[in-house]
Amino acid sequence: MERERQHLPQVVIVGAGFGGLEAARHLRAAPVAVTVIDRSNHHLFQPLLYQVATAGLSPAEISAPIRAVLRGQRNAEVFLAEVTAIDTANQEVLLGDRRVPYDYLILATGARHSYFGHDEWEEYAPGLKSIQDATTLRSKILRAFEAAELTEDPAERAALLTFVIVGGGPTGVEMAGAIAELAHVALKRDFRRIDPTQARIVLVEGLAHLVPAFPTALAEKTRDHLAHLGVEVCTDTMVQEIDAAGVLMNGERIAARTVIWAAGVRASAAGNWLGVPTDRANRVLVLPDLSVPGQPHIFVIGDTAHAEQEGEPLPGVAQVALQQGRYAAGVICGRLTGQTDPPPFRYHDKGNMATVGRAFAIVDTRRLHISGFFAWVLWLAVHITFLIDFRNRVAVLFQWAWAYCTYQRSARLIVEDNMDEAPTPVAMTEHSAER
Amino acid sequence: MERERQHLPQVVIVGAGFGGLEAARHLRAAPVAVTVIDRSNHHLFQPLLYQVATAGLSPAEISAPIRAVLRGQRNAEVFLAEVTAIDTANQEVLLGDRRVPYDYLILATGARHSYFGHDEWEEYAPGLKSIQDATTLRSKILRAFEAAELTEDPAERAALLTFVIVGGGPTGVEMAGAIAELAHVALKRDFRRIDPTQARIVLVEGLAHLVPAFPTALAEKTRDHLAHLGVEVCTDTMVQEIDAAGVLMNGERIAARTVIWAAGVRASAAGNWLGVPTDRANRVLVLPDLSVPGQPHIFVIGDTAHAEQEGEPLPGVAQVALQQGRYAAGVICGRLTGQTDPPPFRYHDKGNMATVGRAFAIVDTRRLHISGFFAWVLWLAVHITFLIDFRNRVAVLFQWAWAYCTYQRSARLIVEDNMDEAPTPVAMTEHSAER
Repeated sequence: MERERQHLPQVVIVGAGFGGLEAARHLRAAPVAVTVIDRSNHHLFQPLLYQVATAGLSPAEISAPIRAVLRGQRNAEVFLAEVTAIDTANQEVLLGDRRVPYDYLILATGARHSYFGHDEWEEYAPGLKSIQDATTLRSKILRAFEAAELTEDPAERAALLTFVIVGGGPTGVEMAGAIAELAHVALKRDFRRIDPTQARIVLVEGLAHLVPAFPTALAEKTRDHLAHLGVEVCTDTMVQEIDAAGVLMNGERIAARTVIWAAGVRASAAGNWLGVPTDRANRVLVLPDLSVPGQPHIFVIGDTAHAEQEGEPLPGVAQVALQQGRYAAGVICGRLTGQTDPPPFRYHDKGNMATVGRAFAIVDTRRLHISGFFAWVLWLAVHITFLIDFRNRVAVLFQWAWAYCTYQRSARLIVEDNMDEAPTPVAMTEHSAER
Repeated sequence: MERERQHLPQVVIVGAGFGGLEAARHLRAAPVAVTVIDRSNHHLFQPLLYQVATAGLSPAEISAPIRAVLRGQRNAEVFLAEVTAIDTANQEVLLGDRRVPYDYLILATGARHSYFGHDEWEEYAPGLKSIQDATTLRSKILRAFEAAELTEDPAERAALLTFVIVGGGPTGVEMAGAIAELAHVALKRDFRRIDPTQARIVLVEGLAHLVPAFPTALAEKTRDHLAHLGVEVCTDTMVQEIDAAGVLMNGERIAARTVIWAAGVRASAAGNWLGVPTDRANRVLVLPDLSVPGQPHIFVIGDTAHAEQEGEPLPGVAQVALQQGRYAAGVICGRLTGQTDPPPFRYHDKGNMATVGRAFAIVDTRRLHISGFFAWVLWLAVHITFLIDFRNRVAVLFQWAWAYCTYQRSARLIVEDNMDEAPTPVAMTEHSAER
């Protein structure tokens, strides 16, 4: 097989997120050798990552080994490796000392969170992009309640029970709703000294409305439902400072031990590898066919590409990545068979949806603008359908049904990054006679 | 409630494994205030930990928050904290600066793996006691296959595809069987350059037979079935050296990138806290009523206790811990109600069981000494029954049914301990033209 592969056009895809994996799958019948390179061994269903961070789902339930996904696609191989550079002159992707030649290259390396020039905030306000981010955040949130139960200092307890989420887009809204329900429902009867229902959850958004991609009416519904769940929503509010003590916003200090960043993203290093112009968020400015100016064999797709439609950059959502992955694969197939290139890429927006806590969602499509229980059922159906494999669908459906009936969370696990280092006793107060 | 608690006898339990949790539950109706202290937030079902390490189950499926388990027990509270010392003179448990007074103390802090004085081996041959151990080992095993796929050096590839398990007790046997099936079945069609079925799995045991706690006939069956699964079994073999290159045993070097330690354990620090005599494995030498000599209010149970029966120390298994937990709780209840102490603790051995790969187990009870499929069904029924909550039972049963039907693993997840540090490209070879 290796010998045959050598004589085929080499298509290298970096990144096995929605865009990269979709491109690989759409090349399954093409006379090419596909190599997918990712530094993780798994494809991650990012839209449900907030449920891992809030103890609702286990990591394995929203991820699938890239290798297993592409098992049946005989023209594809998978490398678990970190790309260190791209040699465009020789058409090679560098993995440290190793070089992987390409005839066509698709870069789908996604984005990380960005702190708008305040990188020092990351330490205090982690973001949510990977499984590791999610389990770290889960430990941080659960540990805050544990430390609050132990401390005898009322001010410290209040700070431990205050959660600030920065960024009122879908991720921020979903996190705020999930933390509110965790605190106010799932943990309600689990503590003896604190009352988790007294936890304060603050959602901060710089613009005038939450979820700016949705119509104002749905944003208002979202705000109302969050208020109903006990979330304080602060719109038109800029965060001025984040440190170990909490958040400074509107000139006011909020003492909070847990701050979560859901405000901005920055594209991965693809632009730097290529040395081509990028926008402020480091996204590569691609041509209408998603190729890189001057490099017709290199395509950039998904969160790491800046493609415009009607003068606006396309949003960093799964749908865009999926459609771009399919498009780039199609362009490559066409060129190999000598067809003329298809018309420029056009994004077909099938709509947006977001959940707000249990049994409430907002759905915005061309025909439908709804909120509430029925929207949540739709949200649920769509997310189950798009999960990558059947086992994950069954497992997630079971966890959701269980959570719906029992109000409990399935994965309330605090796991230390390194158990060999003795965990520091949490929130110890001064020597004091207990009880 | 806090006020009432102060006037009750204080029972402090350190460690929420099988023994500690069982003791806490058996005090549910007693007129005492129970405080359970653990440095993890979850109770762990250790007998299935090897399935997490071999990607069969997710961590949350074999663990439950201690708090949730004791939610309904109103006389119990839970502290997530690390015990730093015990002040027996003042009857206080120290958590850093904080002091928790006790009238009765139960120490059930378990054991970690021990390297018989070769602590330098730990780096190369990790053991399996916590969730973190299991996910680290899972990453190590899965990463070995990934690195083997990437490398172009045949010797390196062979070393990456060699797995040595040191210790032929139930854990070692179960790990060897699970790795064999992972390599030879689940991963079979997932790679393009390596053949995972060529992976070499070596199980090393110092004694003449595997699973020494079982009758020789069952040990032989185990050996035969492991051979059938493609595991090389080396009994009567002492490991002389373990380093980055592999293992030295019987004067022969085995090049192996993955070595797993399942050979010995050492009790936790309970003996050091108390300053009382311990055995070679650091287990506290307890009196027949499981109390500590000279400290009638302190009980030590489970893996951290050395209790003898017919001149032999009791084994470090869940059953012993459970029965000791119940016994210690009973002694405390009895003393509070002025009854005379019960007769000395006696362990009632209900038998042993271990799985060997898929659909094969050995079961040894007073009446039954069987191996094969029916033994495996028994093993399965017992393990499902003893899982701590109903949700876990359903989830594990689903994963097992799925794995049984599809031959696949549900949790093939490589997660870096710290994603912020760029993962090093795995097993890169020298500059070479690919393909």
